[in-house]
Amino acid sequence: MTFAAGTTSLPTPALLLDAEALDHNIAAMSAVLPGRRLRPHVKAFKSTALAQRLAEAGHDTFTVATLREAAGLIHAGLGEDVLLANESVDVSLLRSVAELDGNLTVAVDSAETISAAAAAGVPAVLIDVNVGLPRCGCDPAAAGDLADQAAAAGLRVRGVMGYEGHLMMVPDPASKARKVERSMALLLDASQAVLANHPHATIVSAGGTGTFDTNTWANEIQAGSYLMMDTHYGTLEQPFRQSLWVESTVISIAPDRSYIVGDAGLKAFGMDHGDPSWGEGDVLFCSDEHITMRPADPDAWSVGDRVRLVPAHVDPTIAKHERMWLIEDDAEPVALDVDLRNW
Amino acid sequence: MTFAAGTTSLPTPALLLDAEALDHNIAAMSAVLPGRRLRPHVKAFKSTALAQRLAEAGHDTFTVATLREAAGLIHAGLGEDVLLANESVDVSLLRSVAELDGNLTVAVDSAETISAAAAAGVPAVLIDVNVGLPRCGCDPAAAGDLADQAAAAGLRVRGVMGYEGHLMMVPDPASKARKVERSMALLLDASQAVLANHPHATIVSAGGTGTFDTNTWANEIQAGSYLMMDTHYGTLEQPFRQSLWVESTVISIAPDRSYIVGDAGLKAFGMDHGDPSWGEGDVLFCSDEHITMRPADPDAWSVGDRVRLVPAHVDPTIAKHERMWLIEDDAEPVALDVDLRNW
Repeated sequence: MTFAAGTTSLPTPALLLDAEALDHNIAAMSAVLPGRRLRPHVKAFKSTALAQRLAEAGHDTFTVATLREAAGLIHAGLGEDVLLANESVDVSLLRSVAELDGNLTVAVDSAETISAAAAAGVPAVLIDVNVGLPRCGCDPAAAGDLADQAAAAGLRVRGVMGYEGHLMMVPDPASKARKVERSMALLLDASQAVLANHPHATIVSAGGTGTFDTNTWANEIQAGSYLMMDTHYGTLEQPFRQSLWVESTVISIAPDRSYIVGDAGLKAFGMDHGDPSWGEGDVLFCSDEHITMRPADPDAWSVGDRVRLVPAHVDPTIAKHERMWLIEDDAEPVALDVDLRNW
Repeated sequence: MTFAAGTTSLPTPALLLDAEALDHNIAAMSAVLPGRRLRPHVKAFKSTALAQRLAEAGHDTFTVATLREAAGLIHAGLGEDVLLANESVDVSLLRSVAELDGNLTVAVDSAETISAAAAAGVPAVLIDVNVGLPRCGCDPAAAGDLADQAAAAGLRVRGVMGYEGHLMMVPDPASKARKVERSMALLLDASQAVLANHPHATIVSAGGTGTFDTNTWANEIQAGSYLMMDTHYGTLEQPFRQSLWVESTVISIAPDRSYIVGDAGLKAFGMDHGDPSWGEGDVLFCSDEHITMRPADPDAWSVGDRVRLVPAHVDPTIAKHERMWLIEDDAEPVALDVDLRNW
């Protein structure tokens, strides 16, 4: 885990993004998955500014988890091929995005989601297949029938998707490869069943940061967290660097100097994977707007100093902030709006 | 735990607030702590609309955790007496709020925070005293000296504060009362030391929802979560009702009907106290934008149905949403902006 040196004078808590590490991550992914082999997942960073950077790097198709993310991409001119890799039965919201000047594809896994997409005028769908994660996706054996239903409802069937999210963190590469192969066999079977009646439905979309180089069966990979990383993904051996952290100001020091208190807490960090990490000591606990830390060197700290913390889970961390600040050498930080947050 | 009946047709995830339970909670607190005996803590709900309701119920002094909350209250005409119960050394931000047409008091616990407040033109301070929680607050024995320093810097010293946050969840009332008494003895000692040279510094501010009726030593109580409650505070025997939940739409059902999937996940719930709770089955896990649940009755559910979930921790949950929807009988839901979120 590397930490950028220096501090800013930004109001805190501030979400900082290291431009050099970000560029490294973009290049490292593009080397393995160039162009449309990657369909970047926007849910991880929720920012059209970062999506624009990815488009400039050749990745101009996108994955989203919410209709607001889809609408925002299209409004920003990045809507040539946007996949909502998620189900929705909100006909009114689906219609409002389908009517925009972009190309929306949505995941469907049931008669109800097919009906909603058709009623909303959504042009195209992927059949979402359950490949082992207990979440969305149809029985692989039902994919062909659902594709027929979707086509009969006037929807263009572009292929299949399936998210092997339960395999992202398998530590051993060989074991991960075997498990992903078995999971993707389900998706490839579903793909074959769909292709029987829909020969142009060639998309096989899957994967994430944890399987970007393991999943060689899908023809496009949905990864987004690799841009920023976190302490969770950071435990895997991957070519990506930590590029994101939360800067916090030390606002109080214990009378006996045994701990210091920063002004970033539960509202500034995604907490589902636990406390953030600190390179210069231990995080004891977070409160709503505070973080209490035990420094390795208690005498090194003064009120007003800055600390930088690495989130345990990047996606929900970014979603808590209005903006990120892009940090590059000695240049002034550049604000990147997290403009695709909320619903 | 009670759940309001019925569902809405709002886009989901939607943060719902039951008007009847809210009114009950306001009345139940006012009966114990009328008027300025309560200094409601705005960090819990981050909404000037709710603060306005509290002002109308007689509670027109407020506690905040961030300077944005303070500025928002003042802009909304609710700034007659706003306490930032937190430290800041951001002179520029402190000044921007001190210059508004309101009355700002800030907590100080060090020479640095006193200097910042004085440099920013903040008019008044409370001396923040550590009463056992490892977070902000000076050594009780240092309170008198800090008050003298603050007065010498031109700041009006209004009294002391101390937050016994470590005692909120003590389950046994008698044990809690003994512990709170010992904790508040530290604060009262500090208060006496301050009063020696500053006889008008009479405020003794402390407490929270967990100790609102236990802490009879402070002369004002900083509680906010009681308005909404959560599964954590709901374990205490208190006169408050659950008034807040997240409504989610069922977007997928497992092929074997063993689980259902809702469209509210890690980005819609404060997760530091664990998963939200569901009255009609078990929550298995949350993903970024999904919640996977095992229903008690697997045959009762269809795609498109709505579920209502109770957050484990209310404050960070509300901070993730743009608005709450006030629900009252058959009336149309009324949007309450969470206008004091972010920093």
